[in-house]
Amino acid sequence: MTETPSDTADGEALDPEMVVEQHEQQLQDILAEVDEPTPSDDGPTLDLAGLELNRRDFVKAGVATGAMTGLAGCSGNLLGSDHSGGASNSSTGSAPDHKVSPGEHDEYYGFWSGGQSGEIRVMGIPSMRVLMRIPVFNTDASRGYGYDDETREMLEGAGDYTWGDNHHPVLSETDGDYDGEYLWVNDKANGRIARVNLTYFETDAITDVPNVQVVHGCAAQSPDTGYIFGNGEFRTPLPNDGRDVHSPENYESLFSALNPETMETEWQVKVDGNLDILDTDKDGRWAISSAYNSEEAVEVSGMTHDDRDYVKAFDVPAIEQAVENGDYQEVNGVPIVDGTQQSPLNRGDSPIVRYIPTPKSPHCVEVEPNGEYAMVAGKLSPTVTILDIAALDESSDPADVVAGRPKVGLGPLHTTFDGNGHAYTSLFIDSQAAKWDIQAAVEAENNSTEPVIEKIDVHYNPGHIQAVEAMTTDPAGEWLISLNKLSKDRFLPVGPIHPDNDQLIHIGQGETEMELVADHPAYPEPHDCVFAHKNKLDPATTWNKADYEGDKEFVTQKKSGVERTGEQSMHVKTSSMRSEYGLTEFTVKEGDEVTLTVTNIEGVRDMIHGVAIPEYDIHLAIAPQDTREVTFTADKPGVYWFYCTYFCSALHLEMRSRMLVEPRDG
Amino acid sequence: MTETPSDTADGEALDPEMVVEQHEQQLQDILAEVDEPTPSDDGPTLDLAGLELNRRDFVKAGVATGAMTGLAGCSGNLLGSDHSGGASNSSTGSAPDHKVSPGEHDEYYGFWSGGQSGEIRVMGIPSMRVLMRIPVFNTDASRGYGYDDETREMLEGAGDYTWGDNHHPVLSETDGDYDGEYLWVNDKANGRIARVNLTYFETDAITDVPNVQVVHGCAAQSPDTGYIFGNGEFRTPLPNDGRDVHSPENYESLFSALNPETMETEWQVKVDGNLDILDTDKDGRWAISSAYNSEEAVEVSGMTHDDRDYVKAFDVPAIEQAVENGDYQEVNGVPIVDGTQQSPLNRGDSPIVRYIPTPKSPHCVEVEPNGEYAMVAGKLSPTVTILDIAALDESSDPADVVAGRPKVGLGPLHTTFDGNGHAYTSLFIDSQAAKWDIQAAVEAENNSTEPVIEKIDVHYNPGHIQAVEAMTTDPAGEWLISLNKLSKDRFLPVGPIHPDNDQLIHIGQGETEMELVADHPAYPEPHDCVFAHKNKLDPATTWNKADYEGDKEFVTQKKSGVERTGEQSMHVKTSSMRSEYGLTEFTVKEGDEVTLTVTNIEGVRDMIHGVAIPEYDIHLAIAPQDTREVTFTADKPGVYWFYCTYFCSALHLEMRSRMLVEPRDG
Repeated sequence: MTETPSDTADGEALDPEMVVEQHEQQLQDILAEVDEPTPSDDGPTLDLAGLELNRRDFVKAGVATGAMTGLAGCSGNLLGSDHSGGASNSSTGSAPDHKVSPGEHDEYYGFWSGGQSGEIRVMGIPSMRVLMRIPVFNTDASRGYGYDDETREMLEGAGDYTWGDNHHPVLSETDGDYDGEYLWVNDKANGRIARVNLTYFETDAITDVPNVQVVHGCAAQSPDTGYIFGNGEFRTPLPNDGRDVHSPENYESLFSALNPETMETEWQVKVDGNLDILDTDKDGRWAISSAYNSEEAVEVSGMTHDDRDYVKAFDVPAIEQAVENGDYQEVNGVPIVDGTQQSPLNRGDSPIVRYIPTPKSPHCVEVEPNGEYAMVAGKLSPTVTILDIAALDESSDPADVVAGRPKVGLGPLHTTFDGNGHAYTSLFIDSQAAKWDIQAAVEAENNSTEPVIEKIDVHYNPGHIQAVEAMTTDPAGEWLISLNKLSKDRFLPVGPIHPDNDQLIHIGQGETEMELVADHPAYPEPHDCVFAHKNKLDPATTWNKADYEGDKEFVTQKKSGVERTGEQSMHVKTSSMRSEYGLTEFTVKEGDEVTLTVTNIEGVRDMIHGVAIPEYDIHLAIAPQDTREVTFTADKPGVYWFYCTYFCSALHLEMRSRMLVEPRDG
Repeated sequence: MTETPSDTADGEALDPEMVVEQHEQQLQDILAEVDEPTPSDDGPTLDLAGLELNRRDFVKAGVATGAMTGLAGCSGNLLGSDHSGGASNSSTGSAPDHKVSPGEHDEYYGFWSGGQSGEIRVMGIPSMRVLMRIPVFNTDASRGYGYDDETREMLEGAGDYTWGDNHHPVLSETDGDYDGEYLWVNDKANGRIARVNLTYFETDAITDVPNVQVVHGCAAQSPDTGYIFGNGEFRTPLPNDGRDVHSPENYESLFSALNPETMETEWQVKVDGNLDILDTDKDGRWAISSAYNSEEAVEVSGMTHDDRDYVKAFDVPAIEQAVENGDYQEVNGVPIVDGTQQSPLNRGDSPIVRYIPTPKSPHCVEVEPNGEYAMVAGKLSPTVTILDIAALDESSDPADVVAGRPKVGLGPLHTTFDGNGHAYTSLFIDSQAAKWDIQAAVEAENNSTEPVIEKIDVHYNPGHIQAVEAMTTDPAGEWLISLNKLSKDRFLPVGPIHPDNDQLIHIGQGETEMELVADHPAYPEPHDCVFAHKNKLDPATTWNKADYEGDKEFVTQKKSGVERTGEQSMHVKTSSMRSEYGLTEFTVKEGDEVTLTVTNIEGVRDMIHGVAIPEYDIHLAIAPQDTREVTFTADKPGVYWFYCTYFCSALHLEMRSRMLVEPRDG
């Protein structure tokens, strides 16, 4: 299969290298403009010659038309690397075997966002095996998610949605540690936040956050989950009902706080620019968010025009006080507090939102385990800006909050921690992970490369990077995941759409060299992950009917039956147990609205039953002691064999019954 | 989290062991009735005492209320086993490491059906990593499948379907070997067969097979793929339009033959009973199908009442001749030939369908690599019935076709081959794989256990079993996959819905002992898989626009623009390239029908772009040189930022444009 050349703007065939060149020039023009925003900053300087060299090496190696992906494909080693790159490197060091033998359990749960797949993936670490998928913002017939009445209503919401784009999974905390109760995740595509119940590993609530088009960053308050915070990234008219479509100067973006129990949006804060990603401090006071496009432009050139942007630090108690004082406008039932730089609420000694200048377009904020510092990765600057969290409160000059700014490499996006004083930053452009010493970085001159201890090549172009339990006050170290956006030639080719590549890297407690242990193909496009030790979760292995009684009936074999509930409506109830349904048949009239309630009366683990109704696009998955319900119109006359989809016994194939739909005029 | 007891038929709490007992009694009653169908068969005898003993051991071990899953949970070793069971066994033997080091490639492609998930999964063997998912009978936002106009129309068909239940993936063959062109798979839920293009790894055709409700078995003609065959399993009125719903005696089931190129249904054959699973011979003449419920009953007790059922051997050239002779009825445009036992076409010396008696409810047919024998696993009989394919033609007495019937263990479901004279049969009830000698089985007395060489415990309750390239004339051996339906305690708990467990077993060339190498959790519920050596496929890494020109435009940057095509319709065209769309904004009126055409003009591998339109439930995934199109009604006024969902460059976050929907009355 041959590669085809790309087309230029005017439709002529073009050497792929030229496309690369064009994009590279665009990015270099932007990088060249990155300037230091504060007197204490010596300003990043970029060794673009080194970048160019590496790109040439790549082209020289003959991969320009194949594996080369433009600037994104560069493996520039501005600060050197102890590890060789390329597709042939492998695990040769002293890392423990990551293989988990048959029948043995992984040590950690990993929860992966699924990006535009809409799902959460549960992985075992260190084996990297996907143990389960949890549908969240996607329909998924396997689990009947979006097919039974309850999950369909929750998923579709008021927008008739069938998909979402989830990025940032966060776990519930008690006393600064994971309590195994809940996971929350954002939907960038539709401005939603969902909650996953970790007893049943099922999505149990989805909130369409009012007044925001997309939610990007998502974080849980620490040390106890009092709020779930969400960043409304894109600026839109408020409300977005057709007004001001041609007046971008009137667009707004909002920061939102949700109650984790009720999932209601309690308050929102209006800010300047586009909010990106956030983290919280360890004391329940600050939510700190990166932001870009202070220019409030609508095109990429304008968004990257100015030298600096502003990290926003939200003073949660001060915002609560403003709400209590009535200092808000209410839109769609939610109090919106003005947190823009021009707001009167930001003029005094206790601003509700602090604006911390950084090099332009910073990408992410991560708070290290001690809660002293927040790390702001530069993206277009090769630095990480270290914020002193205590200084947010004490200092009157926001610029003094900057405690350091190590130069870590090109395209720093995210930072994670091993709990032993080290930070690990993903370098998107360099395709590396940089390990650096936090204290050394605070003590060093700005833009010093001295704090960088070691780098390792990853394959290719990492986004998020996560070490085990790095977001808690006591990270476990040992394993690091680099979530790489491109895999290129790392796996057997599977057509034009490639998997991502999550790489498992051994880091020990930070005392050893980083070692690449495994490549793991990921279905596009996971964005982030979070880990919890296996002992911190206590999942149920069957349902407890007390958890749904009142909403749905527990249908025993004896209670199985059919009831006509109206002129054109029926309620059909059936149990399921190896290898029969409680009803062997039921008859309805064409046009009847049928509610089908199915209970799995099995009491033993893993003995799941399904109900598929052919040609009616219906599927239920019913775990032991669970009840599911679906309502549909029997609009096609005929015989429909509904059958069990979960292979349950030697007589599984025979586990089926008939729905007989009599013609209305018959 | 505590296990809750199941409820009995009358709503009283019940000891889970009693549920087990009840189901076991039901199955034992059935097993006890299994009788030999022919004089040459000594008749299977079941050591139910052994079964009982093992169940008691299980209960005694204290797992009755937890991991115990009824009869399905038994690990009965009627014939002994060289391998210990339980959750703690691990790889300790001489099998080669199945780990594939970072950057190295797997040796084989594995294509897994995804069951009720509707997808095909591409796995690397031996690493067991899922390299890619291919949506087939499911919507999948990651790839925009079911979201762009073309794939949505193909998926939904006339039934507005959003899901399906795929079981049996088969690969296209030329000269008896895989040619890497296509994969086909059935949809049990809606009677469809789909084709996946293995150049692009995308579903390119779905046929709703006329006159059948579900398609279960699916096979490709060998040695060259002249037909795709599908088993219509459930019997329904013909046509199923409301007639005869209460007259099961008038229900029919059909065997179908599709043209692999046009995907049209060329002819169908009406048969007795329920067709189950099939395979083809190696000479393009026979399609051989298992079948059950010769009683044509509608409840499980009736379906398993009689002693025997009949494997159906379809004589393809004879059926073609009957069609040519006009010996058919036409229903919904398809010629249906009468292949029932009473058919005149089956009365002469050259019946179009041969009915071969077997112990009742056989589950599967697999033809061994030499094409001499077809193996029919007994399911309710502990035997595999070996059919002599040459004798199908020669013998006048169908019973003489039976060449042997080794007794392999309880619940035999499927058989696979290493190419060195060995067969491997999955034992659902015993939770084992049995390796046996084919020639010895032909030479032995019926019901002899002598041909069985070795057994290995699997965890738990296997369905399909596949060795590498076992369906070709030259299997590679080395690796065996046991696709187990239950995983119970094998992985970290992930809630009431459990993964399946695909286990990797090393078999070498059949000369060594089987060795369990890895457990792999599988999202419910894969049914079967097929392997091809990596050198047999040649996937494209970008699209070739010549493959869609004429249907869709290749939109360059210069061609990007907006055209009003009617009073209330617009055509919007845009290119995409790092890090901008060809259009930075477009304006439509509320209520306009908008067709959005997007081309990814990148020429380099893995540089995918997406288009998400917030709140409009739209997502496109566009690989390099590909064009995708979606049509929707702009029914919500406001500003909608459409953005790139595939992380493509350091300016990916800024890659977005605006759709401005002006109020109709504004």
